[in-house]
Amino acid sequence: MQIPQLECIGYVHNEIHTREQAPKNFDCSEYTGTIEIDPKYLDAMDGIQAGQTIVVLSWLHKADRSVRKVYPRGDRSRGLHGVFATRSPARPNPIAISEFQVLRVEGNILHVKGFDVLNGTPVVDIKKKID
Amino acid sequence: MQIPQLECIGYVHNEIHTREQAPKNFDCSEYTGTIEIDPKYLDAMDGIQAGQTIVVLSWLHKADRSVRKVYPRGDRSRGLHGVFATRSPARPNPIAISEFQVLRVEGNILHVKGFDVLNGTPVVDIKKKID
Repeated sequence: MQIPQLECIGYVHNEIHTREQAPKNFDCSEYTGTIEIDPKYLDAMDGIQAGQTIVVLSWLHKADRSVRKVYPRGDRSRGLHGVFATRSPARPNPIAISEFQVLRVEGNILHVKGFDVLNGTPVVDIKKKID
Repeated sequence: MQIPQLECIGYVHNEIHTREQAPKNFDCSEYTGTIEIDPKYLDAMDGIQAGQTIVVLSWLHKADRSVRKVYPRGDRSRGLHGVFATRSPARPNPIAISEFQVLRVEGNILHVKGFDVLNGTPVVDIKKKID
């Protein structure tokens, strides 16, 4: 099937400006910043609170969608792996899964900690973390 | 920004034919079945093996994208929550995150356990689970 158009629900604002700066995963990141949600989705944010961990899907707009094999984490000693067997940003649909700690909620702005994605990354979904 | 078109990388085949049959989450599902990957992505599957847990993103094609508030898990006693504070399939971009156990790999067919999505659901990404 043709998958319908994704909507951009917001954008990431942080101090990660190059891929070299970006932590390999959210679980080793101390970067703080904000997610600015499009005000038309304000209702959908109701219930997100400081202290929660949220699961965020973002669209890695700088990723190469044509890549099929990579060296996991750049380690050539382990050989090439298919991108579906890795967490590489390079993949046909470069959607990142991150977990961020909510520090504060101000209207349509989420202040969070744990960024592993670049400043300016479009966000496509936010979910409750499974308990 | 306008997010580029998602590619469907494969489809789910299982015995979940109605939403009532579908487990609320992958972590409470015993359903087995297959993910049939488009053969053009065969290279990208290299490294997926029996015994692994894979993280699968799928497009919930039956979900209502216009819903902004829901009763979490249908429990009205807890009041309405914004969809971003829940795991409801209803949300602007209905992308599910599931974890499945790989039982067997046969070419472009992944035999897995743990389905929480309907038969026929399009798959958009597969990732390694973070150790």
